[in-house]
Amino acid sequence: MKVEIIAVGTEVLMGDIVNTNAQYIARMLSMLGLGTYYHSAVGDNAIRLKEMLEVGFERADIVITTGGLGPTKDDLTKEVAGEFFNEEMVLDEATLKNIEDYFKRLGRPLSDNNKKQAYFPKGSKIIPNPHGTAPGCIIEKDNKALIMLPGPPSEMKPMFKDYITPYLSKYSSGILVSTVIRLFGIGESRMEELIEDIIKEQVNPTIAPYAQKGGLILRLTSWGKTREEALDSMEPVKKLLYERLGDHIYGEGDKGLETLVCEELISQGLKVSAAESCTGGMISSSLVNYPGISQIFDEGHVTYSNAAKIKYLGVKEETLTKYGAVSRQTAYEMAEGVAKASGSDIGISTTGIAGPSGGSKDKPVGLVYIGISFKEEVYTYKINITGDRQKVRHMTTMWVFYYLLELLKKYAKIG
Amino acid sequence: MKVEIIAVGTEVLMGDIVNTNAQYIARMLSMLGLGTYYHSAVGDNAIRLKEMLEVGFERADIVITTGGLGPTKDDLTKEVAGEFFNEEMVLDEATLKNIEDYFKRLGRPLSDNNKKQAYFPKGSKIIPNPHGTAPGCIIEKDNKALIMLPGPPSEMKPMFKDYITPYLSKYSSGILVSTVIRLFGIGESRMEELIEDIIKEQVNPTIAPYAQKGGLILRLTSWGKTREEALDSMEPVKKLLYERLGDHIYGEGDKGLETLVCEELISQGLKVSAAESCTGGMISSSLVNYPGISQIFDEGHVTYSNAAKIKYLGVKEETLTKYGAVSRQTAYEMAEGVAKASGSDIGISTTGIAGPSGGSKDKPVGLVYIGISFKEEVYTYKINITGDRQKVRHMTTMWVFYYLLELLKKYAKIG
Repeated sequence: MKVEIIAVGTEVLMGDIVNTNAQYIARMLSMLGLGTYYHSAVGDNAIRLKEMLEVGFERADIVITTGGLGPTKDDLTKEVAGEFFNEEMVLDEATLKNIEDYFKRLGRPLSDNNKKQAYFPKGSKIIPNPHGTAPGCIIEKDNKALIMLPGPPSEMKPMFKDYITPYLSKYSSGILVSTVIRLFGIGESRMEELIEDIIKEQVNPTIAPYAQKGGLILRLTSWGKTREEALDSMEPVKKLLYERLGDHIYGEGDKGLETLVCEELISQGLKVSAAESCTGGMISSSLVNYPGISQIFDEGHVTYSNAAKIKYLGVKEETLTKYGAVSRQTAYEMAEGVAKASGSDIGISTTGIAGPSGGSKDKPVGLVYIGISFKEEVYTYKINITGDRQKVRHMTTMWVFYYLLELLKKYAKIG
Repeated sequence: MKVEIIAVGTEVLMGDIVNTNAQYIARMLSMLGLGTYYHSAVGDNAIRLKEMLEVGFERADIVITTGGLGPTKDDLTKEVAGEFFNEEMVLDEATLKNIEDYFKRLGRPLSDNNKKQAYFPKGSKIIPNPHGTAPGCIIEKDNKALIMLPGPPSEMKPMFKDYITPYLSKYSSGILVSTVIRLFGIGESRMEELIEDIIKEQVNPTIAPYAQKGGLILRLTSWGKTREEALDSMEPVKKLLYERLGDHIYGEGDKGLETLVCEELISQGLKVSAAESCTGGMISSSLVNYPGISQIFDEGHVTYSNAAKIKYLGVKEETLTKYGAVSRQTAYEMAEGVAKASGSDIGISTTGIAGPSGGSKDKPVGLVYIGISFKEEVYTYKINITGDRQKVRHMTTMWVFYYLLELLKKYAKIG
């Protein structure tokens, strides 16, 4: 079963945005054991899009398009698909109702353009879109299937996961099962050195390493006639990887460091607070992004100036003058101070030089001190991060969650 | 002159990596006034790659490939190109010497695989690669040009900039100039309605609307024999767009809301502080991401619990009990309180229901109140956002910067 992915949109073609949809869909298809043979991108142009569909269906059985389902005049995918399959466009009342309700909720007037989104080529399966106004749809004809999805990844991805994956499973012969092992605090090349031989030897499962959001990921993908068979062939390889890389593995599956930390904090009922300098609120913001965090998070502080560090955290003036704001001692007092001020079990602090300026020979850009006041103990960490201001701040946040997760696991065992 | 971009590599096709090369090349081409009509991706497969070249040259005059120039067996681009143009592969001594020197410097033995990189289809222009071992090359035949570039962006981009741009300029009859107009606080379909006639009538410049990071963008692209000519033809259309959409336009070019706000704050020398509930630090973090923000930003507070709102901001207990934490009154007192506590000219507050739970009939998920204490005045805003927790928090942050920029512009005029 051959599949082709077509991105429709001048913004992709002209390079205004990167086509991340193709990557996501290609991954999902290989999970389903379906082969992706081509990706394409074409502009918002009816003639070229139709030609693209002709080429696509000459070399593939299933074509998946992203984009061109929006309300504007240059959103043409459904209309061109209708032409291609010789099907007229018909109104779907249920979809129209959804769109009307959506705009009521927004308190915005419904435009005629939006009504356009309720028309589909006759005979289409309509795919609901809980995250936007543009539903997807599927046309099946002459042993070919055209799957049309919206362009915004925030709408396309959940639609693919919840509706298209089950739909496509009927085309897949066996099953590919995939899992990710998550690592932090080790470089990509170092990791590959440590497991080069394993990666080379492996056929089923395959092992693919990636860098992601400052951490590393090993994607294991194994094939089997059944899900169980696929999972079984994964186990011995997993065991090997843990033997070689165990110190750097913090988890498996979809949950990142932030999620795992929030889950631990809540399950252990430990209150947390943060005093941030260089991260400037990124840590609190990551915590607050977790639903239900209010159980263990009351407050956080961005103490950017020295005055704020003294006023809210009780950092000693002499500490700042003697060691500087970016120092182990200041990080220590910030973490201790914020735990005390907020009456939390855990106090987190960050202070560093995010750049681009402000660096010196002794304290270069990328130097960061982290403090974690955990119950009676205060731990401090010194890290050096290369990269721009945004990266230094992001990586600092990642390191905080990594060290905190270590402490939480240790505490869970002994506590 | 039609151009097609083809990515060669199974890692792109299977979604192991995102095809950012296509975006970069498409941008550069439009700067040169060359039209990109299609992007494609194909795996490391000789038969399908050759088919891809056939399709490509049926619909384009110039085909640019990225990838498949490496030393391994499955790097096939040059070999397939040789077949396609009926040219034998010949050794380039100069390239071989470079590769040999490169490996001497590394102190690594030269493998036969690496020698493969010194062979090119007969008659190729060879493009040096200062950042790797794989040179690029160009074959011209029958009024067609095939440009083969390496896959790694760190090698491809400098090669394109330094060698391919000058090479392509001979094909470019004029120049395309492009700019973006940035809007916020209006839906895509509503905007489309307001300027539908303009978009329809426009040929030069063309107008392309799309959504980006919670805002909207209008990309104007105009063609001219010279840069000046292109810019001139843009002006009357810009004027029209400002007449229709002026209320929602906050800027032009690359700078987003956050950057424009930070620039205004610093140039007007106004100190700012934030008291965040639902955004949980996102606003402070956006401010701190701007280098040099320390001039006007000392501190921010994440007051997530009612207790914290009372303790740090002096929000009245009766306000919280009478109106609730998510209310115009609480937002008012938070903004006023944080400005006072931090001695800032401007105090920002956010309080809302980010979801997924916590909503009610009167106060549904997505309801947010924003407060801005600006000098002597306190302004409050009520907004309703649809979407998940992350989106509610992100959009709230965008609205804060949008309202603040409005106030800063007004103040700059009267002040």
